[in-house]
Amino acid sequence: MIEINAERFILSLNKLREFGKSGVGKGVVRPAYSLSDIAARDWIAEQMQLAGLKVNFDPLGNLFGLASMDSILLGSHTDSQPEGGWLDGSLGVMAALEIARSVKEQGGPPVSIVNFQDEEGRFGVTTGSAVWSGNASIAEADQFKDVNGISLKEARGLMGERCADFVSPDQFKGFIEMHIEQGPQLDIKGQQIGIVSSIVGIRDMKITFQGEQNHAGTTPMQVRKDAFQSLSLFNNMLNQRLRNIVTPQTVWTIGQVIIHPNAPSIVPGQVTFSMQWRDAELDRLLRIDDIVRSAALDVAKEMEVSVSFGTMLGLDPVEMDKNLMGALEYAANKTVGSQWSKMHSGALHDATNVARLMPTAMLFVPSISGISHSFDENTDDPDLISGIRVLATAVDYLYANVN
Amino acid sequence: MIEINAERFILSLNKLREFGKSGVGKGVVRPAYSLSDIAARDWIAEQMQLAGLKVNFDPLGNLFGLASMDSILLGSHTDSQPEGGWLDGSLGVMAALEIARSVKEQGGPPVSIVNFQDEEGRFGVTTGSAVWSGNASIAEADQFKDVNGISLKEARGLMGERCADFVSPDQFKGFIEMHIEQGPQLDIKGQQIGIVSSIVGIRDMKITFQGEQNHAGTTPMQVRKDAFQSLSLFNNMLNQRLRNIVTPQTVWTIGQVIIHPNAPSIVPGQVTFSMQWRDAELDRLLRIDDIVRSAALDVAKEMEVSVSFGTMLGLDPVEMDKNLMGALEYAANKTVGSQWSKMHSGALHDATNVARLMPTAMLFVPSISGISHSFDENTDDPDLISGIRVLATAVDYLYANVN
Repeated sequence: MIEINAERFILSLNKLREFGKSGVGKGVVRPAYSLSDIAARDWIAEQMQLAGLKVNFDPLGNLFGLASMDSILLGSHTDSQPEGGWLDGSLGVMAALEIARSVKEQGGPPVSIVNFQDEEGRFGVTTGSAVWSGNASIAEADQFKDVNGISLKEARGLMGERCADFVSPDQFKGFIEMHIEQGPQLDIKGQQIGIVSSIVGIRDMKITFQGEQNHAGTTPMQVRKDAFQSLSLFNNMLNQRLRNIVTPQTVWTIGQVIIHPNAPSIVPGQVTFSMQWRDAELDRLLRIDDIVRSAALDVAKEMEVSVSFGTMLGLDPVEMDKNLMGALEYAANKTVGSQWSKMHSGALHDATNVARLMPTAMLFVPSISGISHSFDENTDDPDLISGIRVLATAVDYLYANVN
Repeated sequence: MIEINAERFILSLNKLREFGKSGVGKGVVRPAYSLSDIAARDWIAEQMQLAGLKVNFDPLGNLFGLASMDSILLGSHTDSQPEGGWLDGSLGVMAALEIARSVKEQGGPPVSIVNFQDEEGRFGVTTGSAVWSGNASIAEADQFKDVNGISLKEARGLMGERCADFVSPDQFKGFIEMHIEQGPQLDIKGQQIGIVSSIVGIRDMKITFQGEQNHAGTTPMQVRKDAFQSLSLFNNMLNQRLRNIVTPQTVWTIGQVIIHPNAPSIVPGQVTFSMQWRDAELDRLLRIDDIVRSAALDVAKEMEVSVSFGTMLGLDPVEMDKNLMGALEYAANKTVGSQWSKMHSGALHDATNVARLMPTAMLFVPSISGISHSFDENTDDPDLISGIRVLATAVDYLYANVN
């Protein structure tokens, strides 16, 4: 029976928060490959070594702490959104670290740790685990650019000499990712644990309307080819056309808009924006794809601008492994009684990629008011501690039932 | 009779283009207070001195080359849009310089030169001449911020020791600004010269919608307070409501959009955008103001976001001085025969501000295909040379008829 050290676990989470702390509440600014992200990874690598694990950074910067024999893999990611919270993926990595430490001190089943890189999609969508799992090739991923035009190839270059080869997935019996829910369901129900049954599918692409940049005083309205007006029309048209297709669970977002040249006195000549949608059913993801593209083409025609579509990034919806879920259910019953639910994940996770390689499951703790990807993200300490106890108990249970 | 040196004039324009040349055609990137802008001003100050003028930078960075006695003031501005052309305001400054040089060599009426700062509105609207003319106070202008959040106060600090006091406008008999048309009218008519009868009025403000930043996967559509969706709705509503108010000459533009945090996986929590409109009639400018504000308030209510309005910048429509226009008409007839028109200016100019202080007029040369505020801006050399000849002839005529 692994007995985790709750105090040390919470201290580690707070220590990790120091790398890129935002100065606002418990907020964190630690995007993938930033100085604070790399410094955090170096600190975690040190802790892994102290926990008796063999450290390996792969070419993407995914950080593994490997047990000496076949093991269960625990972890998540420590990169953050441009404005993120202290928990998010960091919770899963620090929980894995605490379990590995406890195993070293007390003996117990072999536990390996992973800290994936760029889960938050500075460059793509769950980039580090996508490449590791073969969902994307490294050559393809190297071309991805961030909002400032920096390529993944350039960015991962900053990790320098740390990086060695990819780690073979064959040594792992399965993967369990602990994470905050990032939505309001557990908080509303007053429950402590969510056991994920399936993860949403996603599509994400950049769309560009190219119009004609011109003087905002001397260019009459009727001859303008205004890229912003094209975007606004596209947005309307899309909202209209999706109405009969979507379910209450479907979401779609224009979260990033880059207008060129972005000056008050110039008719915008170009806009590039992100178009992202998520749904639990593959078929619906594909139907929305058709609608997005045809709306953009119709706008281009109507506004006399040109349209181009960037690389489509996507992950299909995925089911969690029944055996691992069973272990989590056993552990949840034992740890929090009935204070847990099975649930679908509307947020995307590294687990989606890893599920291609091995049995995979996920464990959620509540997000207060459902707030996430924000400086205001938080979870009560008792819920964090219940979470790691469920995880440790599930690991114990799995080994007890295999060996 | 001032005989300008056409070759030297064209050479000077090309020399000036070296400061901040874009690498694309004859494009220029020389925003106000950038290193290339300040370097260009230093070079022009040197040339003013060589032409026998007394150099004075005022606190805003407006650069004057002063004749020793009461004089006519010629000039415009050499700062550019984020992506500008080699002519724009630079044409008027280089034309003034060439005339001053010719006067020094040949004798002639006293001619002073001005090179206003930030006409292109990195911070406000025609900022340098607005402050000089009393349209805005320096304390007020110092608070203006550019798209990156840098204040005018910080930016003008970069001009350092160069800056002395403001120049008294009393020493000038009047102001003539030569400029490219920035629209297609002269090019379409095949004419060489436009004499401006009036300049459009403008209103320009920033509007902010504050919604709620959240996770783009776990936040259902119906509970989102999406700032981008608010902007898109505002844009629709505005276009609808303006339909019965505007004339074919009215223009309105959303040219700058800053979304926060601007990431594909986050529901935008905030958007700040520029709202600019122009019309030849003050009354219509004011009616549009009402519509803009009420539409923004209606959107805020409907989308459950908050709205705030930035400082309203504005210049009222203005008539040009009849006496100076007469001199330009005389000079145009003499130089290009019938190849000229009287015209309204849909673009804003420093002349609007200066008209508060003294008799003011403007002279246009054609913009090829009407393209402006773009790397592709251009005018044929013969048209540039006709323009400066008309300007020189008008200066001669004014002095002949005064003295």
